[in-house]
Amino acid sequence: MAVYTEVSDDDLEAFLSAYDLGEVLSFKGIAEGVENSNYLLRTTSDSFILTLYEKRVAAEDLPFFLGLMEHLAREGIECPTPIRARDGKALHELCGRPAAVISFLEGLWPRRITPQHCQELGRAMAAMHIAGASFEMTRPNDLSVAGWRPLFASCAGRAHEVQPGLAEELEQELRFLETEWPDGLTCGVIHADLFPDNVFFLRNRLSGIIDFYFACTDFFAYDLAVCLNAWCFERDDAFNITKARALLRAYRAERPFSKAELGALPLLARGSAIRFLLTRLYDLLNHPPGAFVAPKDPLEYLKKLRFHREVRGPGDYGLD
Amino acid sequence: MAVYTEVSDDDLEAFLSAYDLGEVLSFKGIAEGVENSNYLLRTTSDSFILTLYEKRVAAEDLPFFLGLMEHLAREGIECPTPIRARDGKALHELCGRPAAVISFLEGLWPRRITPQHCQELGRAMAAMHIAGASFEMTRPNDLSVAGWRPLFASCAGRAHEVQPGLAEELEQELRFLETEWPDGLTCGVIHADLFPDNVFFLRNRLSGIIDFYFACTDFFAYDLAVCLNAWCFERDDAFNITKARALLRAYRAERPFSKAELGALPLLARGSAIRFLLTRLYDLLNHPPGAFVAPKDPLEYLKKLRFHREVRGPGDYGLD
Repeated sequence: MAVYTEVSDDDLEAFLSAYDLGEVLSFKGIAEGVENSNYLLRTTSDSFILTLYEKRVAAEDLPFFLGLMEHLAREGIECPTPIRARDGKALHELCGRPAAVISFLEGLWPRRITPQHCQELGRAMAAMHIAGASFEMTRPNDLSVAGWRPLFASCAGRAHEVQPGLAEELEQELRFLETEWPDGLTCGVIHADLFPDNVFFLRNRLSGIIDFYFACTDFFAYDLAVCLNAWCFERDDAFNITKARALLRAYRAERPFSKAELGALPLLARGSAIRFLLTRLYDLLNHPPGAFVAPKDPLEYLKKLRFHREVRGPGDYGLD
Repeated sequence: MAVYTEVSDDDLEAFLSAYDLGEVLSFKGIAEGVENSNYLLRTTSDSFILTLYEKRVAAEDLPFFLGLMEHLAREGIECPTPIRARDGKALHELCGRPAAVISFLEGLWPRRITPQHCQELGRAMAAMHIAGASFEMTRPNDLSVAGWRPLFASCAGRAHEVQPGLAEELEQELRFLETEWPDGLTCGVIHADLFPDNVFFLRNRLSGIIDFYFACTDFFAYDLAVCLNAWCFERDDAFNITKARALLRAYRAERPFSKAELGALPLLARGSAIRFLLTRLYDLLNHPPGAFVAPKDPLEYLKKLRFHREVRGPGDYGLD
C-alpha cells in the first residue's frame, strides 16, 4: 500500500516520450503493493500500470519478471504484459529507478474466498505452469529452504517478543525441513506469491494474475502449497477442505500431479508456512512504530504450519 | 495519501446495488488525499471516485460539500459531480462510514507550476465564485481568524521544538490579525484549499477542480490569498511576481475586485499563511513517529507570512 516515489510532470513526460501510448489523461498513485510504486496511467489509447521498482526488488531480476509476464501473456495467460517503448525495450528509468509500463487488467481481488474462486485458481495456476514451461530464463527461489535459515537467524533473538517459545519451535521445524526437503519434484516457473490480492475476478471468473515479482524456478507443487495456505484457511484459522479440494482437483484436471508431488504436499505446505511466517516476523520486528501500513501477523502462519504438521495424507486436503 | 478503510466485495456489492452504474470492472485504492479513503471505481458505464468519509470530515457538513459540487457542475464548473443512487440521494453508507460516488475527472495536477497554470487558475476560480453565488447553503469557515486561537493554544507550548521563538512570533501575529481582520468584503462560497494537487490540467488547460471538503462561506479574496501562497512561491521560498500577476489579472478579468478587496490582500495572505502554518504545526507535533505520510513543513508558511508582512501594496503582487 504505497507510493514511495513522487513523479513530477516533467519526469513523466520525458519518460513517456519514449513510448507510443497517446496523450496522458490521468495519473494516480495506487494504494496497493508494498514493494513498488504503482501508478494508474490513463491515456487517449488505453489504461496502464506504471511501476517504479523500489529497493526491495533486485534490478537484475527485472528482465526475468518482465520477460515472464510477456511470455505468459503471449501464451494466453491472463496477466499484465509489459509495454515496449519505441526502442523495443520494456524496462526504462524514471526518477532514478527502473520503471516499466504494463497493461491494465480488469477485475477485483476477492476479499471473501469461495470454493469457486479456488477452483478457478487451480485451473489458472496449472495453465500458467504449463505455459511457463517454454520460458527459457530461470531464477532461483531465494525464499525457499536455503533462504529460511539466514532469515530466521536475523529474527531468532527477538522471536520470543512475539510468542514465548517461538524461536525453539521454529528451530526444530527448520531442522526438520532442511533434512526432509524433497528434490526431484517437477520444476518450472512458479508465481510463489499467489495470494488473493494478486488474483483478479470478474463475476466469479478469474480475469487475471498479477505481481510476478517473486516468480522463480521451483517445484510446481510449491505454488499449490502456497495457495493451500493463502486461500483455504478461514479467518478463525480452520482449514476448509472444500476449498482445498476445489483448488487441487481443478489443478489436477489440467496438469496431473505425480505420486511424489502429492505425497510431498504436506511438507511443502509446512515450508510455505514457515516462509511467510519468517518474512512476516522479520517485517514485524523491523517495523517502524506508528508506521502507516500495519504489519501482517506471523502467528497466523504458525497455526497453518501446525495444521500441516498433523496432516496424514492427501485425504486431509480433500483428495483421494 | 491513504486508504483507511478496506472495503470487502460483499460490502461494495451491497452499496452499489443502490445505484445504476453498470457492472464493476475494477476497484483500486488511490494513494491521494489524507482526509478520506478514495477508490477509483471502473464500471461498464464509466469511471468514478468512491469516497468514504473518515473522521476528519464532519458528517453534518457533507450535504453542503456534495450539494455544492452538484451545483457548481450544473453551472458549468469543471468539478466532480456526486452521482445519485436510485433513491435520489448522493450520500449513503459503506463500512459504517458516510460514502458517495462522484464522477471521475481527467487531468493531472501540476508538480511544476508555470504562470500559465496560475492564469488558468485565476480564471477558473473567478468562474467558480460567480457560479457559487446562486448556491443557497452556507457553511462558516472554521479555519478563519476565530479558529486560529484555539489551534495555536494547542500547539504553543511545543512550538519552540520546531523553531525557537516561534510561539512568540505567532502570538504577536495572531493578535495583529485578530484586531485588523477585515469585515464587509464580498463573500460567497470559496474552496479554501486550492492547492496544486486539487487542480487538474490537460495540456496546460485547467480540466478540473477537486476536493471541496474545506469549502465554506467566506471572503472571495481569501481564496485568492490561499492561492498566492500555494502557487506563487518557488521552492527556495522566493515570491514569483509573474505568477501572482497572472493569477490576479486572470481572476480580475472575470470578476473585478473592489478597492477594499485589493487593499486587504496582504492581510488576507498573512491570515492564510498562519492558517496553514498552524494546521501543519499541529500535524507535525501530533505526528506518530515513523508514520508513513511525511508531515508538511510549517516553517515554509512562516517564510510566506513574513513576506506578506513586508508587502506595501498591490504592486508587490504584480498589480498596478
